[in-house]
Amino acid sequence: MATKKPVIGLLGGGQLGRMLCEAAGPLGIPIAVLDAEDCPAKQANQNSLHVTGSFKDPEKIKLLASRVDFLTVEIEHVETEVLEEIATKGVEVPSPDGKGTILKKVSVHPSWKTIRLIQDKYQQKEYFAKNGIPVAEQMAIESGEGRADSLDEAAWKYGFPFMLKGSKGSYDGRGNFKVSGPEDLKSAIEQMGDQPLYAEKWVPFEMELSVMVLRTEDDDGNLKHVYPYPVVETIHEDSICTKVFYPPRSIPEDVKKRAQKVASDVIASLWGRGVFAVEMFLLADGHILVNEVAPRPHNSGHFTIEAVPQMSQYKAQLYSILDLIPRKGANLNARVPSSIMLNILGGAQPTSHNRFVELAESTYDEYTDVYVHLYGKESKPGRKIGHITATGLSSVERLAETITPLINAMDEIRAERIGLKSPVQKQTRRAKPVPLVAVTMGSDSDLTTMTAGLKILDEFNVPYEVRITSAHRTPHHMMKFAAEMTKSGCKVIIAAAGGAAHLPGMLASEVHIPVIGVPVKASVLDGVDSLHSIVQMPRGIPCATVGIGNSTNAALLAIRILGSAYPEYAERMIRYQEKMKNEVLAKDEKIQSVGWQEYLQGMQKK
Amino acid sequence: MATKKPVIGLLGGGQLGRMLCEAAGPLGIPIAVLDAEDCPAKQANQNSLHVTGSFKDPEKIKLLASRVDFLTVEIEHVETEVLEEIATKGVEVPSPDGKGTILKKVSVHPSWKTIRLIQDKYQQKEYFAKNGIPVAEQMAIESGEGRADSLDEAAWKYGFPFMLKGSKGSYDGRGNFKVSGPEDLKSAIEQMGDQPLYAEKWVPFEMELSVMVLRTEDDDGNLKHVYPYPVVETIHEDSICTKVFYPPRSIPEDVKKRAQKVASDVIASLWGRGVFAVEMFLLADGHILVNEVAPRPHNSGHFTIEAVPQMSQYKAQLYSILDLIPRKGANLNARVPSSIMLNILGGAQPTSHNRFVELAESTYDEYTDVYVHLYGKESKPGRKIGHITATGLSSVERLAETITPLINAMDEIRAERIGLKSPVQKQTRRAKPVPLVAVTMGSDSDLTTMTAGLKILDEFNVPYEVRITSAHRTPHHMMKFAAEMTKSGCKVIIAAAGGAAHLPGMLASEVHIPVIGVPVKASVLDGVDSLHSIVQMPRGIPCATVGIGNSTNAALLAIRILGSAYPEYAERMIRYQEKMKNEVLAKDEKIQSVGWQEYLQGMQKK
Repeated sequence: MATKKPVIGLLGGGQLGRMLCEAAGPLGIPIAVLDAEDCPAKQANQNSLHVTGSFKDPEKIKLLASRVDFLTVEIEHVETEVLEEIATKGVEVPSPDGKGTILKKVSVHPSWKTIRLIQDKYQQKEYFAKNGIPVAEQMAIESGEGRADSLDEAAWKYGFPFMLKGSKGSYDGRGNFKVSGPEDLKSAIEQMGDQPLYAEKWVPFEMELSVMVLRTEDDDGNLKHVYPYPVVETIHEDSICTKVFYPPRSIPEDVKKRAQKVASDVIASLWGRGVFAVEMFLLADGHILVNEVAPRPHNSGHFTIEAVPQMSQYKAQLYSILDLIPRKGANLNARVPSSIMLNILGGAQPTSHNRFVELAESTYDEYTDVYVHLYGKESKPGRKIGHITATGLSSVERLAETITPLINAMDEIRAERIGLKSPVQKQTRRAKPVPLVAVTMGSDSDLTTMTAGLKILDEFNVPYEVRITSAHRTPHHMMKFAAEMTKSGCKVIIAAAGGAAHLPGMLASEVHIPVIGVPVKASVLDGVDSLHSIVQMPRGIPCATVGIGNSTNAALLAIRILGSAYPEYAERMIRYQEKMKNEVLAKDEKIQSVGWQEYLQGMQKK
Repeated sequence: MATKKPVIGLLGGGQLGRMLCEAAGPLGIPIAVLDAEDCPAKQANQNSLHVTGSFKDPEKIKLLASRVDFLTVEIEHVETEVLEEIATKGVEVPSPDGKGTILKKVSVHPSWKTIRLIQDKYQQKEYFAKNGIPVAEQMAIESGEGRADSLDEAAWKYGFPFMLKGSKGSYDGRGNFKVSGPEDLKSAIEQMGDQPLYAEKWVPFEMELSVMVLRTEDDDGNLKHVYPYPVVETIHEDSICTKVFYPPRSIPEDVKKRAQKVASDVIASLWGRGVFAVEMFLLADGHILVNEVAPRPHNSGHFTIEAVPQMSQYKAQLYSILDLIPRKGANLNARVPSSIMLNILGGAQPTSHNRFVELAESTYDEYTDVYVHLYGKESKPGRKIGHITATGLSSVERLAETITPLINAMDEIRAERIGLKSPVQKQTRRAKPVPLVAVTMGSDSDLTTMTAGLKILDEFNVPYEVRITSAHRTPHHMMKFAAEMTKSGCKVIIAAAGGAAHLPGMLASEVHIPVIGVPVKASVLDGVDSLHSIVQMPRGIPCATVGIGNSTNAALLAIRILGSAYPEYAERMIRYQEKMKNEVLAKDEKIQSVGWQEYLQGMQKK
């Protein structure tokens, strides 16, 4: 066909390869897969270029290379020697005259250098540390005779607990051992066997984060650009990433930015084109440590299929490899406010997961969509056989609440599989919804004025927080509150004050989000003093002022503001205004039908 | 596999079948396709159930039926006799004991009755008319000897022009002849040949509309529900639907609702499960006439893949056939405000369309995404070989402006193909950025007050629009402006007014987004009249008021509001506040170092 794009050869045809093929089909990008005949990827892509065999077999890899223009991988556990040979020397193909063979160059992305580095988790992190990337402290553990002494040294250096990890071949965290005390040393040696090991200082992380990064490079191997996707929170169970939350729950904006920055730096230090996952630990003090990198599409990037539909991690992988990312840059912004990915793992029975899938098919509402992805794999206990992605028009906390039945079903299937009597309450940290609105007042006497507004927030189902912070009596407390609010992800502050009403304006000076001021009528001047104190702010610091005592309008204004980020609230506002209109129209109809005199009597009776 | 769903057999493996397979893959729904080996659908779906052959061959249809649980079609030009036989009697399959054959029942959706009716366009509309559906007046034209007289009768009955149409086998409008006057009658008879014909009264339509409808039915053939998708505007060129606009441009909401109602009524009158396209004419007087129905996914529904991602027409087709639509109903709301579909038709050369595809791959911005769908078909002049769908975060008019280069490229390829010297009607209107902020004032005399604010919007690089709309002098213009703004994707309105300042409050009553009011000082009362007129809004309709004449703060407040949806603006605000702080600190330092007297002299010199 005249429209044909260069052919991409793919080592491995599992679920990542399948989703790559699903993305490639509509784009007209031909993919040749090296894997078994009925592997998940080939189910979604029929063509004559596929190679049947193992993606570890060098001869098969060369056969694949001879048919394609680019080579890529869906798994990093591949032979890098043959990839290096193909990338540097080329692969034998019949010469045009048919009388012999010539060497054809095939580009390998990501580079075999990246894959080789990443195959050794210890070397990977040594390399990152040398490049100024923050990683956990680590030391190599000797093999053979010296192993016990070496372990003692690690224990002395890091104290207990510390982690013992296999340098190679570990996947999804398998091959990790937590050494909790001296009593564990012997069983650690036994269980970890002969493999190359390293010890890592214990990282008491608060949360695991992941950022997918798109890397572009010119044909000479010079970095063009790194583009980070939005950061996500990942939950691991049984050493497998099972849940992904976009955006991460309750972490400040600046941490998200730093995570994207660190991830971009990591990937800039590597070689080749494509997408890469950077898994990180977030510590209690806000520090970020890089845990490991996957040089390919990743579980923590599945959510991009629906949340970043214009450039999912799969499309990004294809476009990057083919160097199709326009110079103006890739737009990797999420097109939905929130998304949650849940892996579907095979349960105790081959059919255990069916009810989860059925539940997913019927879990949706006006603000929530759920997408099922099955991989065409036989179900085995603990095997990744699919995933679902939920997207929400509201906050991630709200989305998590909506799909709680799905999360519970998933936990139950796991409990049954691993033989627990009842699903573990793994999530001990009950996610408190991030308050989108903070309501504060200078004095508890303002609470009566604010009641009407708080009821509106309840009616619209807005997560909010109520505080008392006086500008004059507790100036430092007020400042602290302001700083907390902006970091928490709160979107609007409503502040009520009377008399020389400084609270709204002082908060507006301290934060960068909109502050709505409610003038409270004090004992003299009918509230005009409060109004003028709030509305007449100096140039530079705006305070959105509403009518005297009108907390209803303050709440409604806050909801209109939320509407610009969360379509859910915009829709509710439209319905609210419709209801108000109908109420007035009904009154007009009534006064026409009963006459004003009877209407008035009716009003007086109330 | 334990998760296996019932198998759907599909007659025809073109682009509609391909997109059906693309939707079925992730859902784990097996599809068996009857068509050529390398047809578009099979490229996206490899399995052992496919049948190679023609979807018109009764024996192949029976072979396919023997392998599946449900049968469906991607094209209505199929043999309905064999479908009727399979649906009513069953299909022969080997008996369980292997000694003979038994009859297996296979459900056919949509029903063969629907397909048979639709194959005859004349009968189709006769049936609709009987069911109270509005259609154009029509009469059957006799065959053979009586044809000329019958045509004369039609001309007498309908006048000129009228349409002459083939009842059967016409597809994408082929087989239509416009009889403009008596001089056309002879060539009409010649060109239309022996096929069964009917005449249709000329319909002077303003716009062509289409509504996809999802139909559910129980196993006994009782209608459960019809769900209409949003209505779209379709543009036909050379008798092919080439452009689709969601929502239709400039038609009132009530027309959209009526189109959905008519389409639902049409489909409720038919038989079987699945999605159906209802193509309609909108007349100048607002009347809607049904033109024809396609009993399958349709060109005018391609946009649902991205615009209704939770339930595209393909997913709906699968879920309806398998009876998987939950009782609570399907959510067919669009998840984006606007979408445009453009067909990719083969050009004069096999490579003509390549630059269109390349342009599509690089056409996007912060508010616009473009998705390419290629069908894996050889390019031939005028052949449908793919489509693109653009989605916008703003109005369809704005989206059309943004993708003008794409529309132009498409028109150029067509012009080259059909041999036009220059493309018709090049759309030269340049794409304007979506205004995020609309600034308006009651009178141009307010512009001096607003200047400072406009400069702030420039400084922060906010796309905005300035308008003059007076609440008192142009109340209707003001209302129209308000309606336009909310539809356009604008996020905040800033309104300035003085005296009995009604503009901000009236706008707030009309829209659901935040309105910021700037009180302008009039000739008396020092602006207090304006302030009170703006801030003291009744409960229910908030207006965010800033200080008298303080347009700077109005702009800064607008930017703080944008910050909740666009992190870019939140960051700029943080930097702006930092800068302000540093300026004051520098002044403090200076006054300390030079003394207040010299400082004052410096100020007076400026």
